[in-house]
Amino acid sequence: MHRTKVRVVEDALDANNTIAHANRDDFDRFGVRVINLMSAPGAGKTSLLEQVLPLDGVRVGVLEGDVQGSYDADRLAFRHVPVTQLNTDSGFGGECHLDANMVRSALPELPLADIDLLVIENVGNLVCPAEFRVGEDVRAMVCSITEGEDKPLKYPLMFRSCELVVINKLDLLPHLDVDLDRLIYNLDAVNPAAKRLLVSARTGEGLDELRDWLVQQAGVPVAAQA
Amino acid sequence: MHRTKVRVVEDALDANNTIAHANRDDFDRFGVRVINLMSAPGAGKTSLLEQVLPLDGVRVGVLEGDVQGSYDADRLAFRHVPVTQLNTDSGFGGECHLDANMVRSALPELPLADIDLLVIENVGNLVCPAEFRVGEDVRAMVCSITEGEDKPLKYPLMFRSCELVVINKLDLLPHLDVDLDRLIYNLDAVNPAAKRLLVSARTGEGLDELRDWLVQQAGVPVAAQA
Repeated sequence: MHRTKVRVVEDALDANNTIAHANRDDFDRFGVRVINLMSAPGAGKTSLLEQVLPLDGVRVGVLEGDVQGSYDADRLAFRHVPVTQLNTDSGFGGECHLDANMVRSALPELPLADIDLLVIENVGNLVCPAEFRVGEDVRAMVCSITEGEDKPLKYPLMFRSCELVVINKLDLLPHLDVDLDRLIYNLDAVNPAAKRLLVSARTGEGLDELRDWLVQQAGVPVAAQA
Repeated sequence: MHRTKVRVVEDALDANNTIAHANRDDFDRFGVRVINLMSAPGAGKTSLLEQVLPLDGVRVGVLEGDVQGSYDADRLAFRHVPVTQLNTDSGFGGECHLDANMVRSALPELPLADIDLLVIENVGNLVCPAEFRVGEDVRAMVCSITEGEDKPLKYPLMFRSCELVVINKLDLLPHLDVDLDRLIYNLDAVNPAAKRLLVSARTGEGLDELRDWLVQQAGVPVAAQA
């Protein structure tokens, strides 16, 4: 019984990878680089995007993944960035992650010819989003310092799958019983190669480095940025 | 294609409910009341249990659900409470929720004859745990104030499915741009009947009320508690 279930899941992941490759081909055709941005609920993905967008010299679009509603998309629309909403609640109670086919269904709505960089804001969840590629070039996650220092150990697949780990809400550190060194030690244990940025969307600390990283991912020639 | 997928999911939920009823019958046979405790990662489920357990006059056991590891179970073992670990990472990358069959597989390990109340600490996730009954009598969730006031609107199924919503980390409110009244307004919009407790695991604020609620769920006659 359990064996059967696992096999079904593996088939589903195979199909997902096939569609993710097709998405990637389409993104490549338009010269669009894609970031899959993940986190637990309320870690600050949208707040960080609100702070750093728009980027100088890089045309950014956002694909917002949510179970339902368009609260984050509405917030980002104020930043004069093209935002497309993708809801996962068709079917039963709502999917807890984006998969490649959901992103594929949104491709016709995306202004691919007019952007250099697409940020896909995934559903807030530290488990399943890490299991489904959607056609991204790079994966980034936001980890709020308020979640505690043990999260890399409890959700290792997520932390391991990301090229960048943004540790957010650093301004709250003096008010928490959280050991930042221990958090970074735990991150090193599961993903020593990950780039990490210590930031606060509230105070602006570290946001220049986050902007630089985003610009770098876009791969736009420096001349075009001037 | 999508239609087929939804049907499979509905069948899976049917099977889940059948097993959840069987779990419930077993819990009832031992006179054990069961709480399904849910939250986003790092909202403070374990910290709250560390603070309020053990309970006077009520014998509590904990079933810890995690993708992998036994970090929370190890923490609770210090409270001299019987703790059973249930990991969801057999198979592929790990399940993002507990289902009735996983809980059923843990029944032989639970000291049902020696406890009055079982707290099942679910995997940290605001989506799928709400979709799978595991045989509980009552559902409770922890929402950290740091997650922002919009969470009831973004994860309505979770907030709607709980009899109790514990709003935690209240001590951080002065350091956040979060509107507590708006959070409660949003909770009222999706689940006006839910009991809500404002607490801080760090300062102890509101924990007496949480203890009282837990004791009440256990349904132990007052004489036995003396």
